[in-house]
Amino acid sequence: MATREPEIITNKQQMRNWSRSMRSQGKSIGLVPTMGYLHQGHLSLITEAQKHTQLIVVSIYVNPGQFSANEDLSTYPSDFHGDIEKLKSTPNGVDVIFNPRNLYDYGVERDRSGGSEGEKEGGMVSCLEDEGRGHETWIRVERLEKGMCGKSRPVFFRGVATVVAKLFNIVEPDVAVFGKKDYQQWRIIQRMVRDLDFAVKVIGSEMIRDKDGLAMSSRNVHLSPQERGQALSISRSLFEAKSAAKSGKTVCSELRRSVIESMEAAGGKIDYVEIVDQESLEAVEEIKGGVVLCVAAWFGKVRLIDNMEIHV
Amino acid sequence: MATREPEIITNKQQMRNWSRSMRSQGKSIGLVPTMGYLHQGHLSLITEAQKHTQLIVVSIYVNPGQFSANEDLSTYPSDFHGDIEKLKSTPNGVDVIFNPRNLYDYGVERDRSGGSEGEKEGGMVSCLEDEGRGHETWIRVERLEKGMCGKSRPVFFRGVATVVAKLFNIVEPDVAVFGKKDYQQWRIIQRMVRDLDFAVKVIGSEMIRDKDGLAMSSRNVHLSPQERGQALSISRSLFEAKSAAKSGKTVCSELRRSVIESMEAAGGKIDYVEIVDQESLEAVEEIKGGVVLCVAAWFGKVRLIDNMEIHV
Repeated sequence: MATREPEIITNKQQMRNWSRSMRSQGKSIGLVPTMGYLHQGHLSLITEAQKHTQLIVVSIYVNPGQFSANEDLSTYPSDFHGDIEKLKSTPNGVDVIFNPRNLYDYGVERDRSGGSEGEKEGGMVSCLEDEGRGHETWIRVERLEKGMCGKSRPVFFRGVATVVAKLFNIVEPDVAVFGKKDYQQWRIIQRMVRDLDFAVKVIGSEMIRDKDGLAMSSRNVHLSPQERGQALSISRSLFEAKSAAKSGKTVCSELRRSVIESMEAAGGKIDYVEIVDQESLEAVEEIKGGVVLCVAAWFGKVRLIDNMEIHV
Repeated sequence: MATREPEIITNKQQMRNWSRSMRSQGKSIGLVPTMGYLHQGHLSLITEAQKHTQLIVVSIYVNPGQFSANEDLSTYPSDFHGDIEKLKSTPNGVDVIFNPRNLYDYGVERDRSGGSEGEKEGGMVSCLEDEGRGHETWIRVERLEKGMCGKSRPVFFRGVATVVAKLFNIVEPDVAVFGKKDYQQWRIIQRMVRDLDFAVKVIGSEMIRDKDGLAMSSRNVHLSPQERGQALSISRSLFEAKSAAKSGKTVCSELRRSVIESMEAAGGKIDYVEIVDQESLEAVEEIKGGVVLCVAAWFGKVRLIDNMEIHV
């Protein structure tokens, strides 16, 4: 019987031992990979996972492998104590919080399960150190990783795919749940799982928005009140585009222009606005059937992404 | 209890079901990945695997993902019936021969276990077809894959690493055995397993030579008697270099020149002759401690590789 006080595991081997012990008892395991600083969006992934498996592992790990040197690894928000409280109060709870200190440390692994929580919350560790003996294996999903977020964040998806593969090999889940808010990421993980024959079922879970429409993101905390007001132009323009498409305005160049103009008028700096096939993520010229409208834009120093599935 | 008449499995899901069923009974599983056309070298890998696990799976699959368009995929030798006979007569036998038709077919998987063996031996299937929905995920071991064989065969190791990851995810072995004859490959797989946290112990097994000294290789069958005679210059020059090093001649440039001259004098066309660190595979200038001398050379239309670990 699962306890509702989650077990905190920090060691890879202990994590795998737990999973194997549970599997040998016939239990199924769901994994929800996160970078912590949990919000309602993450908790909805847990609710989704609970539909599929008896046991739930939530990983909390800010993965240095997916950040470029010029990106916001050092300022990525974290609140491990708060995360634990949120996970404890989640309906039906979770079974394990997997919180490794450094997934790229291949030396003699230090067992920190007895350490203080402060130690676990310590500084990020780069995986780019230790030249010659350091981590050098990367998974590339070569076509899907190229467009959209892959253009401005060239090492992002190889870092995501690689750390997810590591988590799959450590946790050995039956099911893993990813948010459709990170749409390209979700499709890349699906493709990786298919192409590498991972025995993991990947579930895409619907995005959660705040009441004002802003897609939930750990990075929203960095928005000033003014920037947050401006950032509402993202969801507003996406809903407007969806309505327009449903009323017959299906030419993508026009829809994209409207979205770009709305966000720029509100003070956003566009990274991309694309209307793409939901699976191949290739650009489409006119909406026939299902597409997804994906956007990324800067508001102040914060880069936000959002998307909207549209079926006509 | 394992039967000594091996079970032939061609379907991914059936393969994984077999492994999971065995694991649930507490059995350990060893995997020996091969491309078939088995010789004594392969059989020695099986003997090695038998030291570590109760059950043995031998995969026979000519992996199109590791051949360039200009390489010898279409002429790679095969003899599935002969392979089965050799595996049956191996001391203690093997439990499963995993012989998938196409590991890159992600359509509705056709169960060919009822098909004729002729069907299973049919033509190779490229993984590069089916643009847009085809296989696009590749594992790169970015530093180790660059040198030696990686220079003349730029997609080789990404293909090897990727298919081995697939086999690991399908067979879920506890142990996998690779021949040290393919030295760089062995080190790359070791590194991949470490970096991606695969729960597989990788064993490197010593190379087997024919009585005349030629390293055993499925490709040797393509050598004419004359070319085979010339190719003996490979092992001869490697043994001479080892003796020279042990007698104090430890300057790598001189050792390499002797090996190159010997093989060229015999009619070989050198691809590379390198003396490298056994783990990092980085070139060394003088032998202190352990190194490996690796060579690749063409004799006629056949590219052969060989190597010699040297400790002084």
